[in-house]
Amino acid sequence: MFNAVCMNYSFSNKVSGLQASAIREILKFTAFPDVISFAAGNPSPEAFPGKETAEITAKILSENPAAALQYSITEGYSPLRGTVKKRLISQNCFSPDIDEVIIVSGGQQGNELSCKVFLNEGDTLICEAPSFIGSLNSFKSYNVNLCGVGLEDDGINLNALEDTIKANPVPKVLYVIPNFQNPTGKCMSLEKRKAVYELAVKYNFIILEDNPYGEIRFSGEHIPSIKSLDTEGRVIYVGSFSKVIAPGIRVGFVSAPKDIIQKIVVCKQVSDVHTNVLGQIICYEFMNNYNFEAHLEKIRTIYRKKCSLMLSEIDRNFSGKISVTRPQGGLFIWASLPENADMMNFCRIAVEEYKVAVVPGSAFMISEKDKSSCFRMNFSTPSDEQIVKGCEILGRLSKEMFG
Amino acid sequence: MFNAVCMNYSFSNKVSGLQASAIREILKFTAFPDVISFAAGNPSPEAFPGKETAEITAKILSENPAAALQYSITEGYSPLRGTVKKRLISQNCFSPDIDEVIIVSGGQQGNELSCKVFLNEGDTLICEAPSFIGSLNSFKSYNVNLCGVGLEDDGINLNALEDTIKANPVPKVLYVIPNFQNPTGKCMSLEKRKAVYELAVKYNFIILEDNPYGEIRFSGEHIPSIKSLDTEGRVIYVGSFSKVIAPGIRVGFVSAPKDIIQKIVVCKQVSDVHTNVLGQIICYEFMNNYNFEAHLEKIRTIYRKKCSLMLSEIDRNFSGKISVTRPQGGLFIWASLPENADMMNFCRIAVEEYKVAVVPGSAFMISEKDKSSCFRMNFSTPSDEQIVKGCEILGRLSKEMFG
Repeated sequence: MFNAVCMNYSFSNKVSGLQASAIREILKFTAFPDVISFAAGNPSPEAFPGKETAEITAKILSENPAAALQYSITEGYSPLRGTVKKRLISQNCFSPDIDEVIIVSGGQQGNELSCKVFLNEGDTLICEAPSFIGSLNSFKSYNVNLCGVGLEDDGINLNALEDTIKANPVPKVLYVIPNFQNPTGKCMSLEKRKAVYELAVKYNFIILEDNPYGEIRFSGEHIPSIKSLDTEGRVIYVGSFSKVIAPGIRVGFVSAPKDIIQKIVVCKQVSDVHTNVLGQIICYEFMNNYNFEAHLEKIRTIYRKKCSLMLSEIDRNFSGKISVTRPQGGLFIWASLPENADMMNFCRIAVEEYKVAVVPGSAFMISEKDKSSCFRMNFSTPSDEQIVKGCEILGRLSKEMFG
Repeated sequence: MFNAVCMNYSFSNKVSGLQASAIREILKFTAFPDVISFAAGNPSPEAFPGKETAEITAKILSENPAAALQYSITEGYSPLRGTVKKRLISQNCFSPDIDEVIIVSGGQQGNELSCKVFLNEGDTLICEAPSFIGSLNSFKSYNVNLCGVGLEDDGINLNALEDTIKANPVPKVLYVIPNFQNPTGKCMSLEKRKAVYELAVKYNFIILEDNPYGEIRFSGEHIPSIKSLDTEGRVIYVGSFSKVIAPGIRVGFVSAPKDIIQKIVVCKQVSDVHTNVLGQIICYEFMNNYNFEAHLEKIRTIYRKKCSLMLSEIDRNFSGKISVTRPQGGLFIWASLPENADMMNFCRIAVEEYKVAVVPGSAFMISEKDKSSCFRMNFSTPSDEQIVKGCEILGRLSKEMFG
C-alpha cells in the first residue's frame, strides 16, 4: 500500500545475513493437503491437555482475572518458578535456588537470551553439527563466530571439539542438546557429558545445555544432565514446556547461577517484559493439581509407539543403503544416504513427485552449503496411517535411487 | 547452590552496561503495603475484560484446543492480523496490507525487534528526552548511540531535533511516542508530526512510532498518526493490546512496509518463535464478537475520571511552584519542580517518610545522570481514595519544601 517510490532499506548486519533458505522451497510443499509431512517438529495434538487447560483458565479467569491479565514480574510467576525448582531437584540431580530460575517465553528465548548475555559480535560459539536450526539462527543474529563439531553415536566428537576449541581465539559458549538431539535423535553418553564439562573447566567456557526433549524418554535409562555435574556454575540449563504441555502457550525456563539469571532478567525485560501469565498459570496448575506424571507417561507411550512404527516401516521398506538412528526419546529420526548421494535431489523428488516431505540435513548445518547426506524424519506429528504410507513411498524412491 | 569457588563471568558488552538503577531503590518501597504508589504504569484492573476472556478461552479450549495449543506461525494468528489491518484502516487513516502487519509479544518486543533489524552497534538512534525507560533500555542493549531531544508542550523540539541529526554521523532511526507520551502525557501536534516526517525524508531516517496509548484518548480531538503521513514507507508503527485489553497476555503488533516486516519476522522467529496463541485468540475474539467500542469507552471513562480527580487534587494541594501537564489521554501526569530543586531528594522523602511513591524524572532520561527536576505520577492504578490521600500528602511535602 506504499508508494511505488520504494525505499532501499539499510538493515543491520544482524539481519542482512539471515536469508530465506533454499530449504524453505522444499518445506513450503508441506502446506499442500496431499503431502504427507515428516518435516514438522510439532508435538502430537493427541498429547495436548485440552480439557485440563480449559478447566484451569476458566477457574483463574472467573476467580481472579487480574492475576492472569495484569503485568507481572520478569522473573516469572513465582509458584511456577518454585515448581520448576522442585522438579529439577527431583529429576535432574541438581538443586537450584529459586533465584537461579527464570521463566521464559519458550526454550528458544532461553537460548537467545543466553547468547545475548555472553557473546559479543565475533566471539566464538561452538555447537554440534548438525544442530537445531532455530538456535543456530538465533546465534547468527548476534553475528557470533559459529563453529560446528560433528557427532558420533554417543554424542559430540570429543577430539574434534578440543581441536575446534584450540583453533579459535575465545570460545565462550558451547551449545549442546544432550538428550534426543534435534535433528539426530542421539543422546550424549554420561562419559561424554563428564568429558565435555572437563573441557569447559580446562578452557574456561560456558555450556548452554538445551533440554527440550529430556522428559520424553520412552526407552533406555535416564542420563544425568551436564548441569548436574556443574560444580563451578558454568552450565546454563534451558528447559521447555512445549513438548510436555503445549508449545502454543510459549513457556520455558532457564536455570543458571544467580549472576547469570540476573543478566538474563535484564535482557528479557527489554525484550518482552515478561512471559504471558496465563500460559505460566496453566503450567503451574497442570503440574500441581493434575496427574502430570500420568500425562507424561501418556505422551511417552504415544511417541514410543509412533517411533517404533516408523522404524519398523523404514526397516521393511527402505533401501539397505540408508541407515537410520534408533532414538530412545524425542521426536526425530535421522536418516543417512550413501556417502556421495545427492541428498537435496532425493528430498526434492520425495516432496515434489512423491508428496512426502522430509527436512534436508543441510538445514541443520552451520551453513546450508555444508555437505550433508542426511535428512530428518519426524514421527510425532503424522498419523499412523501417514507413517505407514509415507515410509512405503520413501522406501520405493530410495530403492529406485540407491538400489 | 553453587560452589564457593565463584566464577567471574565475562558478560557481553550488551549487558554489562545495563545496571540496576538508583531509582530501583526508590521503587522497591512501592512493594510495601502502607505505601500509596503513583509509580506504576499498570492499567486499572477495573478495565480488564475478565468475564469475556473466561468465555473466550473456555470456548476455544473445549471446541478446538489444538488451535490454541499447537505451534503457530511467526507472523501471528491470521484472523487477528486481519482485525488489526481493518482497525488501522478505520482509525488511523493508513491502509496496510496483511503482510504489512505482524503480531508481537507486546509493544516492547515491537520496538526491540525494530531496533535489532535496523541498527548496528554505534549507529545513532534519536529519541525524545524524557522517554519510555523500557524502550531506552532495549535500545541500549544493542549498544546504539542514543541521543535525546527535549520536548515542548506540543511534542519534540524541532530545532533541537535537526541540530541533533546534523551533529551525529548516521541517524538511522527516530523513536517517538506521539500520543500521551510516557512519561510526560504530552501529545505531538499534527504540525509537528508533519515536520518530523519531512525531516525523516530530508535526512533519510526511519521513524519508529510507538502508540500504546492512542486508543485511550479521553478528551480533545484525535490526531492522525505519523504513519498516516507516510508516503515513502519509512514509518514503523507499533501498537499494543496491553492498555486496551490486558498486559498479562503479552500481545501487540507492528505495521510497516513488507520488506521491514519480513526482517522483523526473521528476528522474532529466532527470539520466541511466535506470540502465545491463546492471547492472540483472546484479542481477536474480544474485538470481533464482543462490543469492543463500548469496552474502550468504559476504559476512557475510568481514566478520564481518575486523571481529572488527580489534577484537581494536585491543584488543591500542591505548592504553586510545581507545574503539571494536563493530559488528554494515557496513564501519566508529569510534574515539574522549581528549576534548581533537588528532585531526587523530594522523591526519596516522599516515599521513605511520607509513604507516597512517584518516579523520579531522571529514570526517563538517556542517562540517569542527566538532570531532571520532574517526576511522573500515574493515575490509572491507584484507587480514588489513594489519589486523594496521596495528593494531599505530596502537597503538604511540596509546600514544606518549596513554599
